[in-house]
Amino acid sequence: MTNITPWSVTEDVNYDKLITEFGSEYISSELLIRMEYLTNQPIHKWLKRGLFFSHRNLNSIMDCYEKHEPMYLYTGRGPSSESMHIGHLIPFIFTKYLQDVFDAPLVIQMTDDEKFLWKDLTMDEIDVYTKENIKDIISIGLNSNKTFIFSNKQYISELYPTILQIQKRVTCSTSKAIFGFDNETNIGQMNFPAIQAAPAFPSSFSKLLPITSKCLIPCAIDQDPFFRLTRDIAPKIGFAKPSLIHSKFIPSLKGPGKMSASDINSCIYLTDDIPTIRKKIMKSFSGGGETKALHELYGANLNIDVPFQLLNIFMDDDNRLDFIRENYSKGRMSTSQVKNELCDCLIPIVLNHQTTRSQITNDTIHEFMHIRSL
Amino acid sequence: MTNITPWSVTEDVNYDKLITEFGSEYISSELLIRMEYLTNQPIHKWLKRGLFFSHRNLNSIMDCYEKHEPMYLYTGRGPSSESMHIGHLIPFIFTKYLQDVFDAPLVIQMTDDEKFLWKDLTMDEIDVYTKENIKDIISIGLNSNKTFIFSNKQYISELYPTILQIQKRVTCSTSKAIFGFDNETNIGQMNFPAIQAAPAFPSSFSKLLPITSKCLIPCAIDQDPFFRLTRDIAPKIGFAKPSLIHSKFIPSLKGPGKMSASDINSCIYLTDDIPTIRKKIMKSFSGGGETKALHELYGANLNIDVPFQLLNIFMDDDNRLDFIRENYSKGRMSTSQVKNELCDCLIPIVLNHQTTRSQITNDTIHEFMHIRSL
Repeated sequence: MTNITPWSVTEDVNYDKLITEFGSEYISSELLIRMEYLTNQPIHKWLKRGLFFSHRNLNSIMDCYEKHEPMYLYTGRGPSSESMHIGHLIPFIFTKYLQDVFDAPLVIQMTDDEKFLWKDLTMDEIDVYTKENIKDIISIGLNSNKTFIFSNKQYISELYPTILQIQKRVTCSTSKAIFGFDNETNIGQMNFPAIQAAPAFPSSFSKLLPITSKCLIPCAIDQDPFFRLTRDIAPKIGFAKPSLIHSKFIPSLKGPGKMSASDINSCIYLTDDIPTIRKKIMKSFSGGGETKALHELYGANLNIDVPFQLLNIFMDDDNRLDFIRENYSKGRMSTSQVKNELCDCLIPIVLNHQTTRSQITNDTIHEFMHIRSL
Repeated sequence: MTNITPWSVTEDVNYDKLITEFGSEYISSELLIRMEYLTNQPIHKWLKRGLFFSHRNLNSIMDCYEKHEPMYLYTGRGPSSESMHIGHLIPFIFTKYLQDVFDAPLVIQMTDDEKFLWKDLTMDEIDVYTKENIKDIISIGLNSNKTFIFSNKQYISELYPTILQIQKRVTCSTSKAIFGFDNETNIGQMNFPAIQAAPAFPSSFSKLLPITSKCLIPCAIDQDPFFRLTRDIAPKIGFAKPSLIHSKFIPSLKGPGKMSASDINSCIYLTDDIPTIRKKIMKSFSGGGETKALHELYGANLNIDVPFQLLNIFMDDDNRLDFIRENYSKGRMSTSQVKNELCDCLIPIVLNHQTTRSQITNDTIHEFMHIRSL
């Protein structure tokens, strides 16, 4: 059994096994063709390249879009550090793409309460992280007319009726089985799945969305346990099951494992300056040969090469990426050349993010966070 | 071990054992003398007659009052039925007395969420019960300038930061041990103790009360487990332990056991008309002799006689009560005479309540429920 929960991810993730174990489905090429046809927009590179690889019931959202029925997107962020890293942007960049192609409202849950219950942090610290993280999220370029960002602490009164409906239908046994909780789990943690589940139902947004809206949740696959539970409850409280689209994890700069904000050498922060980014990339875990001769003979192992994997995520140009794949894997490009390609790709992304972010004011934040019809 | 939790009370309650098991203290005559002296007001008949019989740390509230330090009262009601019974009035009548003698602010929690989590009721039904119950509570004559009534659903956003502080410090083990929960308990129930505990801390009322206010909780003794937990947590989150004052249960009209709104023959509803009240009292469980001759010989057993026990609660006139005790216990008064005494005592109380209640408008309710400095 793989060991993936929302709070822990093992180093070696076998995504095939995960799909089998979780009971989700691979995103098929038929599904991608349908999506491209329906939305009349090119498919996102992360779908083509398999970064978003798994789903639940994505066809029902396509049906919904096809019939012009109301739908919305729901994603979230746990504000456990002031500085987000480039991996944290992925669900939001992808969600923005979905928002654009489906022209759909989007709600973003900031789980300040979760971080307080799990981490050794004060509420004041988390309040700062929440605000700073919201600035990063807004900087993605989300449409303020169609995006509602809320913190659980601030929005709890609107969520609470739906939370109660969910709480009533989840036993401690179920919560323990799905999340690996035990008797030493605190009662807030035991209860938290109801809080993350609530925004998957339109009753949580009665002032913002039509009550018949169907929900699509883009998220990393480790969040799936929450939404398996949510999907089980949906019919019991009179709503459609939310659809899901899952991403893989972004690799740590240090090699196998997940990029993590709590390990400064594993990640590139959105606040890192150019020399820092360059230094981190140059030191990142490589799949190149151990010597120049071996590299030229056998080429690089792209399956474990972090710079290439990051290029595979962040580089827009398919042709250039194919060129690098071809030549690096055959030893005709060196690791340092590939790392330089990654610098050239990532540094502008981070700098651009920093510029956009610096222009975000309290008024901008308010624009996204006040309650209004979307 | 006695079997008293907030959701179940055994038929025969041994209050001595309960005090030992719960670890509370009897209210001593010294304490009553101190209270009478400090407040310069006569002691309530329910203190003299032992209906409120147990406490935790009542002296610290007296100290607080003596030093003119801020304090407040906290009590509550679970709105599980539209019609309250006369027993439900007791904590509120007593709390009004405390409010008057201490000139203290009072907060009243309506646990609409609890009733939804425990009962087979819809949210809409509970909303109706909540409003109707609030009318009954207001009719007690509470001072609207010093009383804040809130429903958890409506006030949750103000409570939530304090709830999180509590949740973080209560494991499922603790919640199970105190409340008898198990793995089949739903996650909302498991979490509910944090919600009932929160108003015992002034941080729940940052817009209403000074943050240094000390809390006194008048309640029936079955609510004590919530507040033992609350007192354990208090120092961990930087607040004083709340003080408590406990009442016994009001007996069922049917004999041993607790008056219950879900059993129409066990209770007198505040909506009952005169013939119904009279009929219920006349049919109530008596400790009189089985025949006239036996009654005259041995007298009534007042320990099990419901009409006398209710007179002992509701009759103001000490002399008349002594007269009845003396003569009824010696068989010189008949059961029907005592039942008639009870009718004469209770009917005006209920009628008076009904008249006051009929004058309560939505504006009156709003007066008590809006957030303001108390």
